[in-house]
Amino acid sequence: MAYEFKVTRQVQFSETDMAGLMHFSNFFRFMETAEHGFYRSLGFSVVDLSRHPRLGWPRVHAECDYKKPLRFEDMVEVQLLVAEKRTKAVRYVFRFRKLNDEQPIVEVARGEMVIVCVQHFPDGRITSAPIPTEIAEKIDVAPAELLGR
Amino acid sequence: MAYEFKVTRQVQFSETDMAGLMHFSNFFRFMETAEHGFYRSLGFSVVDLSRHPRLGWPRVHAECDYKKPLRFEDMVEVQLLVAEKRTKAVRYVFRFRKLNDEQPIVEVARGEMVIVCVQHFPDGRITSAPIPTEIAEKIDVAPAELLGR
Amino acid sequence: MAYEFKVTRQVQFSETDMAGLMHFSNFFRFMETAEHGFYRSLGFSVVDLSRHPRLGWPRVHAECDYKKPLRFEDMVEVQLLVAEKRTKAVRYVFRFRKLNDEQPIVEVARGEMVIVCVQHFPDGRITSAPIPTEIAEKIDVAPAELLGR
Amino acid sequence: MAYEFKVTRQVQFSETDMAGLMHFSNFFRFMETAEHGFYRSLGFSVVDLSRHPRLGWPRVHAECDYKKPLRFEDMVEVQLLVAEKRTKAVRYVFRFRKLNDEQPIVEVARGEMVIVCVQHFPDGRITSAPIPTEIAEKIDVAPAELLGR
Repeated sequence: MAYEFKVTRQVQFSETDMAGLMHFSNFFRFMETAEHGFYRSLGFSVVDLSRHPRLGWPRVHAECDYKKPLRFEDMVEVQLLVAEKRTKAVRYVFRFRKLNDEQPIVEVARGEMVIVCVQHFPDGRITSAPIPTEIAEKIDVAPAELLGR
Repeated sequence: MAYEFKVTRQVQFSETDMAGLMHFSNFFRFMETAEHGFYRSLGFSVVDLSRHPRLGWPRVHAECDYKKPLRFEDMVEVQLLVAEKRTKAVRYVFRFRKLNDEQPIVEVARGEMVIVCVQHFPDGRITSAPIPTEIAEKIDVAPAELLGR
Repeated sequence: MAYEFKVTRQVQFSETDMAGLMHFSNFFRFMETAEHGFYRSLGFSVVDLSRHPRLGWPRVHAECDYKKPLRFEDMVEVQLLVAEKRTKAVRYVFRFRKLNDEQPIVEVARGEMVIVCVQHFPDGRITSAPIPTEIAEKIDVAPAELLGR
Repeated sequence: MAYEFKVTRQVQFSETDMAGLMHFSNFFRFMETAEHGFYRSLGFSVVDLSRHPRLGWPRVHAECDYKKPLRFEDMVEVQLLVAEKRTKAVRYVFRFRKLNDEQPIVEVARGEMVIVCVQHFPDGRITSAPIPTEIAEKIDVAPAELLGR
């Protein structure tokens, strides 16, 4: 079982905006990158074409608190933590830390996403579904002290 | 004084993802488009190069609740509402409605952003600042019934 | 029959980069927006779920010559012109013109895309296919003087 | 002196589109990532705030030939090769190879960019400039056999 995953990314030029900072919407893309890496670390992919009906993992909620800006070429660590686990949903917390040139390493942003499990039927219908047991049993909830602000 | 702004956009192919839906991060880009249109409707631009020190309007918080998906070529109305106005910050609520083929028109998502006013100094320093009077006096808070869920 | 389509877009903040200019990759997204608008103007959509096997329109070539930069809030007209029409492919030329504050209006960029028609089979196979007659007969080649540099 | 740089990236969910493939515009972002990594490998950054007037490296031409699609989670190697070196410009060729599950590894796309060196003056003026000697002398042209199709 796992409750944590870390991924490190470098801010690309195309991810900045004319304010000279990483555009705020890209923090959400980084969160998703960590989420998908977490799934791979558990041995499955968010896209599994062998399953019928096909599973989907849409988000019903996403948020981010921005504390310090990120700039071009900054190295940022995104730490995913499982904050809550329900039958049909998982809530993740994401802590962004800038790794370069700062001691001590500081949290520059904190995000959150609530993901639900759904089934996609061939006729286009989408219905919520319990997280498959073999996936759910691999996901643990992180200790409170890791989540605490 | 104004407390509202509406913009209509059509979902582009490059805004979709392999789930066939608009990628969730793009809702935040749509919110920003409405925010900047709101500023223009008040007679100023979020980027004003004539001001020294230069003003910036970074977000310190952004969130979105996703209720129904948006798909390629959907026409979506983004309604910005001023939810709160403070000396150095404004909180906006965004209501997304899909205009095509649905009667009655339904809210597909609801977002929120807290923007603070900052000054950018030539040496790179960024400090929070009161919203300039000539801008603040044009911004009103929306009636509760427009904001209510 | 048609050989031309025009769409006007305003450069968004999220489309700029830290150089203060529209990121060069977004010119390709604007081209695609014009292409899809062209299809809609002919009465069909690039995504037609009623057709089996499903048609696709991938690009095999894309290019752009950048002459002048675009900036935040610039109004830009993208003119699509059909440069060549083959059995299984179409070559489009795109002329970008900045509409604001410049007299005479100047061409800021010129792009090109070669699109091929393919069939997507349920087993994942993708094969090239002739453009369906009812679509091909609506597409004309633009006069040379419109394409000429 | 160097004429080559390689970077490996994994296709992210947010980089796919509803056709299930990496959106064609993202190949250009991958090229730029390789370009900036190349500069870092030479000991400088594309963004150097210590230089006055500030240098810029806009592209005047970009193109891509698409041979095979890339999909979510594909590992792709982007090889930058210096194809031509002039006083004020460099032409790069980019070869995209998919590393996962294919033997032999095949080229899925090939791109090209022409970058010019410019100076940004405080008054907003941008003029072309010779590539600074200490940068130019580190850049070599790749052997023809590496570039050949």
